[in-house]
Amino acid sequence: MVDSPNRLVERMVGHRVTVRLKDGRQMAGKLRGLDEHMNLVLDEVDETTPERSRHLGTVVLRGSNLVSLHDPQGSAGPSA
Amino acid sequence: MVDSPNRLVERMVGHRVTVRLKDGRQMAGKLRGLDEHMNLVLDEVDETTPERSRHLGTVVLRGSNLVSLHDPQGSAGPSA
Amino acid sequence: MVDSPNRLVERMVGHRVTVRLKDGRQMAGKLRGLDEHMNLVLDEVDETTPERSRHLGTVVLRGSNLVSLHDPQGSAGPSA
Amino acid sequence: MVDSPNRLVERMVGHRVTVRLKDGRQMAGKLRGLDEHMNLVLDEVDETTPERSRHLGTVVLRGSNLVSLHDPQGSAGPSA
Amino acid sequence: MVDSPNRLVERMVGHRVTVRLKDGRQMAGKLRGLDEHMNLVLDEVDETTPERSRHLGTVVLRGSNLVSLHDPQGSAGPSA
Amino acid sequence: MVDSPNRLVERMVGHRVTVRLKDGRQMAGKLRGLDEHMNLVLDEVDETTPERSRHLGTVVLRGSNLVSLHDPQGSAGPSA
Amino acid sequence: MVDSPNRLVERMVGHRVTVRLKDGRQMAGKLRGLDEHMNLVLDEVDETTPERSRHLGTVVLRGSNLVSLHDPQGSAGPSA
Repeated sequence: MVDSPNRLVERMVGHRVTVRLKDGRQMAGKLRGLDEHMNLVLDEVDETTPERSRHLGTVVLRGSNLVSLHDPQGSAGPSA
Repeated sequence: MVDSPNRLVERMVGHRVTVRLKDGRQMAGKLRGLDEHMNLVLDEVDETTPERSRHLGTVVLRGSNLVSLHDPQGSAGPSA
Repeated sequence: MVDSPNRLVERMVGHRVTVRLKDGRQMAGKLRGLDEHMNLVLDEVDETTPERSRHLGTVVLRGSNLVSLHDPQGSAGPSA
Repeated sequence: MVDSPNRLVERMVGHRVTVRLKDGRQMAGKLRGLDEHMNLVLDEVDETTPERSRHLGTVVLRGSNLVSLHDPQGSAGPSA
Repeated sequence: MVDSPNRLVERMVGHRVTVRLKDGRQMAGKLRGLDEHMNLVLDEVDETTPERSRHLGTVVLRGSNLVSLHDPQGSAGPSA
Repeated sequence: MVDSPNRLVERMVGHRVTVRLKDGRQMAGKLRGLDEHMNLVLDEVDETTPERSRHLGTVVLRGSNLVSLHDPQGSAGPSA
Repeated sequence: MVDSPNRLVERMVGHRVTVRLKDGRQMAGKLRGLDEHMNLVLDEVDETTPERSRHLGTVVLRGSNLVSLHDPQGSAGPSA
């Protein structure tokens, strides 16, 4: 079964995901929206850098700065 | 509910937002306009770098240098 | 025999592959899906950086951050 | 009121603006022209780097190296 | 005689080539396939970094990370 | 008067210009040609790096590495 | 006389040229071919880095890594 990356990310909407950015920061938040460039909207975001952690609320992320995105609960598994 | 990043940013027009750039600087200002490349216009901008803070007035930002944008007041929540 | 890179990666779906990213991290996981930009979906991912190793579950990777991908078992050899 | 970044920059033609480049340099000059890639023409340019300051005359800047542009006098405010 | 880069690389299929990547690594392997973005498939790859050398098997390389490619045996010379 | 960057550079053909590249080098030479990507041809080029200076003759420069271009004599002023 | 960069490089085919890459390396070789992305084929290449020099034979170079190209003999002057 082949699963397209964009379709998988769409199935993650509503889930809490962890995103890593090119500048080394990591953000965890509830995925609220995305577009075809993988620009993302995350709610209730907690940002972590090597130095500190802070709460940011709603964040828009540019897809071009995204390295990876994962779903720590694994709740975006293949539909059975 | 899926919410497109561009639509969310459009709803933030008139709000004070915080923008992070690829070179590490951060700018806070009132969002006045944007385009489909996420080039932004901000008014009454305060710029913060690790070294200092200064007032810049109206600023045009290239979308290609944007990492993230957030709305500290959370005023861009989903329309109820 | 000329073998297109995308076709080869498609033949790797279901196999465990190792991916190297531009920021130096390496991820090993079962390839679940891909698209024409070589964005990838990997399951049961183990991430390795020079400093540490950790388990991440399902991960979506941006093709623009990919450097190389290989199949340690060589199971994606040319169809005989 | 939504104000497009390109339209705002067009309204700045004839004004003295300050431009920041990706390599950290800053240039102040009178905006003479621009195109849709935000390539700019500036006249009577003064360039400032962390090390020194110098006068350059007329300069063409590649939009791809632009980080931000601002109008210190705020003279490009919204038309009343 | 003008020889297009892609045509030359196609003539190298089946030969052992040496590829240099943007991150400084070098890979030597038998060229098995390529596409119009110069994404490559190499078999029996030996990877060399300034620190170490290791065997990787079959590797898919993103053309966007390629700096140069050469054929140490010169076997891809112009057809006589 | 709005003056397009490309048109201004075309008017500089035949003049001695100074070009700054992303890697910090600077080249001064007589502008002989250009294309729509701002790839440039310069004749009688003198290259300056922080370390040294040398004469290069005719040089083709990739527009994607250009940061800025200026005309020290100001001879490319607006046509009166 | 305006001379397009691509046309000039085409006229250099058969000449020995010196190419500088984004990673600081320099290659000198006989230009054998090119395409519209300025991907190049060079024969009898000598590579020079700040540390050492070595002979590479035939090399394919990605245009996206090219900074500049010049013809030390000046043999690609304008046709009289």
